Parts: sequence; structure tokens; C-alpha cells
Amino acid sequence: MPAEEFVVTPYEVKGRIDYARLREMFGTQDLDAALLDRLRAVAGGELSPLLARGVYYSHRDLGAVLDLFEKGSPFFLYSGRGPSGPLHTSHLVPFELCRWLQARLGVPMYIQITDDEKYWARNGLSREETARWGMENLYDLLALGFDPKRTHVFFDSRSIAALYPLAIRVARKIPYSTVKAVFGFEPSTNIGLVFYTALQTVPCFWPSWAEGRTVPCLIPCGIDQDPHFRVTRDIAEGLGYPKPALLHSQMLPGLLGESAMSTTGDRADNALFLNDPPKVVERKVRQAFTGGRTTVEEQRRLGAVPEVCSVWALWRTRFARSDEEFAQVTRDCRSGAMLCGECKSKVLERIHPFYAAHAVARERTKEWAESTIVTTAPKPL
Amino acid sequence: MPAEEFVVTPYEVKGRIDYARLREMFGTQDLDAALLDRLRAVAGGELSPLLARGVYYSHRDLGAVLDLFEKGSPFFLYSGRGPSGPLHTSHLVPFELCRWLQARLGVPMYIQITDDEKYWARNGLSREETARWGMENLYDLLALGFDPKRTHVFFDSRSIAALYPLAIRVARKIPYSTVKAVFGFEPSTNIGLVFYTALQTVPCFWPSWAEGRTVPCLIPCGIDQDPHFRVTRDIAEGLGYPKPALLHSQMLPGLLGESAMSTTGDRADNALFLNDPPKVVERKVRQAFTGGRTTVEEQRRLGAVPEVCSVWALWRTRFARSDEEFAQVTRDCRSGAMLCGECKSKVLERIHPFYAAHAVARERTKEWAESTIVTTAPKPL
Repeated sequence: MPAEEFVVTPYEVKGRIDYARLREMFGTQDLDAALLDRLRAVAGGELSPLLARGVYYSHRDLGAVLDLFEKGSPFFLYSGRGPSGPLHTSHLVPFELCRWLQARLGVPMYIQITDDEKYWARNGLSREETARWGMENLYDLLALGFDPKRTHVFFDSRSIAALYPLAIRVARKIPYSTVKAVFGFEPSTNIGLVFYTALQTVPCFWPSWAEGRTVPCLIPCGIDQDPHFRVTRDIAEGLGYPKPALLHSQMLPGLLGESAMSTTGDRADNALFLNDPPKVVERKVRQAFTGGRTTVEEQRRLGAVPEVCSVWALWRTRFARSDEEFAQVTRDCRSGAMLCGECKSKVLERIHPFYAAHAVARERTKEWAESTIVTTAPKPL
Repeated sequence: MPAEEFVVTPYEVKGRIDYARLREMFGTQDLDAALLDRLRAVAGGELSPLLARGVYYSHRDLGAVLDLFEKGSPFFLYSGRGPSGPLHTSHLVPFELCRWLQARLGVPMYIQITDDEKYWARNGLSREETARWGMENLYDLLALGFDPKRTHVFFDSRSIAALYPLAIRVARKIPYSTVKAVFGFEPSTNIGLVFYTALQTVPCFWPSWAEGRTVPCLIPCGIDQDPHFRVTRDIAEGLGYPKPALLHSQMLPGLLGESAMSTTGDRADNALFLNDPPKVVERKVRQAFTGGRTTVEEQRRLGAVPEVCSVWALWRTRFARSDEEFAQVTRDCRSGAMLCGECKSKVLERIHPFYAAHAVARERTKEWAESTIVTTAPKPL
């Protein structure tokens, strides 16, 4: 694949991604300063690091959702996880933004755990594994600080009675040709995966069904997931529901230097898993791909390139404590004042306490995680 | 379409069907005298009219199921109904055989009401309609005389929590190319219908899952439904379940003279609906297509042709009280001794009391129909 080529679908990310071009290809809108100002205003004068530092960079219909919010009609948040193994830090990106929005705006959060989809999408995984990872991943997500009273979980295999009445209506609206075109399905694709996008659409409409009125939906997700929700948006109005709005993040570079922190195949060292012991975290960060130069002399003279660096991405998403600190790290990297070894030592001083605190918070969620799982339909449909 | 051409799929029946050739095309076995003798023996010396009069004429693996039964391992029965409107008398054919087998052999019966499939397969139908007809049809089916203690119903939209864990496993085994080839799906087919065959397969394996041991399955169905279960049989062993055995019936000719009693489109007069008032039944039978000749003189001389006659099919399936009476009706038809008007008067004398008794039995099932609907999974899967 030539350097300027890349592929981004919900099932494949390949090549060095040109995010501006990807936004144009997908036909999404720029998350510009005016919109960020409006977000800052409704959130009480601050912006989440992920918004302030440009990790979220694209959207669909965010303005319309904010219009309604400003008039007193709150939206709900929806994000999901396909449980194929332990979570890594990149998986947290949509959920950290959701947690921040929930804390600032008091809005409900719906989390979908797609233990069926992952079983259909990955031949090597057993149902026992996707179900077990589903619960393990859920503990990790809830531990970010979600409000137990305002957080609702669709755990597909266990929530199907709640989801299916709406899924029946959604599925009739989606022809095979659409999912084939959008997801690049082959004749060998199993019929579970073909059906799946109907179930991924259901949470977008579920609160409107449950409450019997229009409840807008906002979905923070990696831009690679946008095609799923393009299908959703196309059918929403025909079913009498609002189109979900989207907030798209860039994918974070993997520790091995790839465009996205995927660990499919034999690439466990490409990411920091939340269940990695401290020694493993230390080793992975120490060996991580950076934007540094081949010699100290050269780096002092030319500086490094943060945009391609997997360690800079760690500072950017959560380990810089303020936007000022993040700006300082970026300047010191670019100028050559800070070498990669020093930078890695500093970020590790943040990562280890984060892991320790997370482990405690995670354990506590086990007391209430079950209570968030929705198992019944709100009413006949 | 030339006279010798016909089409039989689960979604289309067209042309004058050559049943022997259809059996060869589908690769099923002949339901021969030896097998009928074995069935008669296990059933206490008698055969159901539908077996004795050749309505059931083909099978897959019936011998293997009887081998096990004779050794003390009973099978269960499974049949289904797609609720798109009122039932007509042809719809009863698989269920009447099931009821007879249950009464004679004491075996469990599983009925699937596919209110999701019918919504996906027929664009004119609303979900409210398929759900409502699902219950209405269920009352009619249970009224045939099923044992409330041994009869279990999967009402898809309401039983999905019981079905879905197994459907997830089934769906991964079925590639899109298979359902496309078997059912003739088009790019415009919705993804619900593409997924559906997974749900139709689940009841075949469900009792084995629930009981944690191998429970053989026997499915009486119209031969047009065989393709569904060919898919099921292909994947059964890979999932650790036995292949379901099948008993295939011919389709009964419609009152308007078509090969099958379909009422899709503007063909309500093609069938006797169970909710037709007596006057409508009278009119439909009086105007029904027969195998008679154009003049009385010709019919007295040449006799009529019972095999193409929709009224003869009524005698054959249920209104002749004995095989002897059925043989007599057939002889009198073929010889010209009985003209069509007289034959219709005689069969109406049987149909009216059948309708009256059915209405009473149907009303009684409303007390216990709900209790047959399975809503929970037996255990994690």
C-alpha cells in the first residue's frame, strides 16, 4: 500500500491515516472552535482533555443536539464495546468523554456490550470468552466513574428481550445490499454479523421508545465506527426516531507504531492493557515506538515528532494533568529539550498510580454492575 | 411457465407440482410401506389419516428416530407457523399429525410462532398484526387437542431470551452464501430475513440444550419448508446436536384450483379460514374448483379426477371419518357415481360441525395458552 493510502472500516484500520481527508471521505463535519466554545459553555466553563487536545475532531449534528440541550431537552449518551479480550487504554477514549459529559451535564449513559457480535466477527473466540470478557470489560468501563443511577447497560446476550422488539423493526429497514456495501461483507460472512448492525442501532432509539417521546442520542466513537451509524441515521426518520448525533475521535497510534492500537493477531505489545501488571506496563512503554530521532545529537538538534508518537498520545489523552502541561510536553518534545527516555519515565510516573486507582475503583463496581444491565422491554412494540 | 415446470421454495410455490420429482430434486426419502408399518406399530396399531392417505409421502431420517424410540429414547415434535393472518385448513396439516403423534406416543411438542419472520417477509404486514395473529393462530393450533403439559411454545418476539443464546451459536455456522442459495435471497432482502433461519433452527436443538443430553427432533412440515431444515441438518453435528428428522407432506390444492392453498395477494377464496362464518364456508366450497367434467353426462360416463380436486383434498385430510369412507368417496368420484354438487353437500355436512366444535375448543385454550410460552433460557450457553 503506498504511503498516502489508508483503509478505515469498522473491521479494519490500515495505513497512515490522513484524518482531514478521512473526514471528507466520510462526509462528516469539522468539530470547530465555535462548537467547542458551546460545549465549554454548557459544561460549566471547561473542556474535557479529549476535546481540548483535539482527539475528538469531527462530528455529525452536534449543533442540533446542543440547540435542544440549551432549550432544556437533554440528550443521552451511547457507546459500546465488543468484548474480545482485556481493554486497553485506547478503548477508554469514548467512555472517558461520556463520563465527563455525564458528570458535567447530568445526562443518562447507555453502554452496549456486544458479546454476540464479537463471537460472530472473530472465529477464534468462544462464546464463553466473549461473555466473560463482556463482564470484565464492563467493570473497567463503569470504574471510570459512571453514575450507577444514570447508567444503563445492554449486555446483548442477556439484554436481548429488551432489545429485540425494536431490532425487529430496525432490521426490516436495512437491506442486505446496504450492509454489504458499508461493511464490505463477503458471501462467507455469517448471518449473525449480517444481522448485527440492527442490534447496534437499537440503543440509539431505545430511550425514545421507553419514554414515549423524542430523546436525542449522542454517540462518541472512533471515526472507524461511523459507517455503523450512517446506516442508523439513514433509517431513523422512517421509524419515527431522531438521527443520532456523533462525535468522532481519531484512532490513537499503537505502541508498535501502527495507526491504531489494535491488538488483533500477535500484537499484545501494541497496547497497554488495563490488566497488565506494572512490570509489563514498564516494558511496553520503554520499548514503545516514538517520534524520536536515531541519535541523541540529532534529536537535540532537530527535535522529535509528537504527532506520530505513541507516548505523546498517552500524555494527550489522559496523563497530562492540564492542557498547559500537555502544551509544555509537546513543546519540549518538538524542541528536543526532552529526550524520549526521559519522557517515558515521566509518563510512567503517571501511569502506575492510574492503574492502582483504577484497580480499586473497578473492584467496587462489582457491587452494582449487575444492577445496570437492562433485561426487559419497557412496553410492547 | 410450461405445464411440466414448477417452483417450490419456502417463499414461493408455483405450477403443477410433480411430487415424486420434487422428492428426487430435494434428495429426500420415500415414506414407504415398511416405515408406515413401523409407525403403525409404535402408535398402537393405527395410522393417522394423513399418513394412511398419503398426504405425508417423504421423509429424512424417520427410520433413525424410530430406531431410538423403539429402544426407549423418545423424540420431540417441532412445527411452526408464520402468523400473517387467520389459519386455513391446510395450515393444520402438520399440527394434526403432531397432535396425533403426541396423543399416541406421549412425546413433547414445540410450536414456533414466527411473528418476527412474517414481519420481515411481508411488507404489507405491521408488527401489531403479526403479534396479534400469532396469538390468534396459537389458540387455533392448541385447540386441535395438544396436551398443555407437554406442549411448549416459542413465540419469537416474546421468547427471544430463551432462543437467542442458542441462535448466536447457530448463526455463526451459517454463511450468507448458504441462505442466498437456499432461499433465493436478493440484495434487497432485509437483514432480519437473512438472519431468520438461525432462529428457525434453534427449536431443533433447544430440548437437547435444556436437558443436557441428546433429544432427537422430528419435524412434520410441508415439503416446501424442507430447505430451511437442510441448512439446519448441515450444521447440527458441528454444534454437537443431532440432525432433525423430517416428515414431508404434499401441499393441498387451493379451492381456486392452484397447487397450494396460498392466500397471499387477493386470493381469500382459495382457502377455508378457520374464522370464516358458515355462510362463507358454504359459498367457498360451493364455488370450489374440482376434478369434475364440463357436463353431467360426461362426468357420469368418464368419472372425475380426484387428484386435482380441492374438495377431494378436504375428504382426504380430515373429513372422511375412516380410510374406508375415504376410499368409497374416491371410488364414487372416479366412477362418476357421485357428482361434484352432491360431494360438496356431503363434505359441508362434516365441515360445519367441525367448525362449531373447533370454536368451543379454541375458546377453552385461552385459559392456558399463555402458560405454554417459553420465555427464559434453561441455563447459560
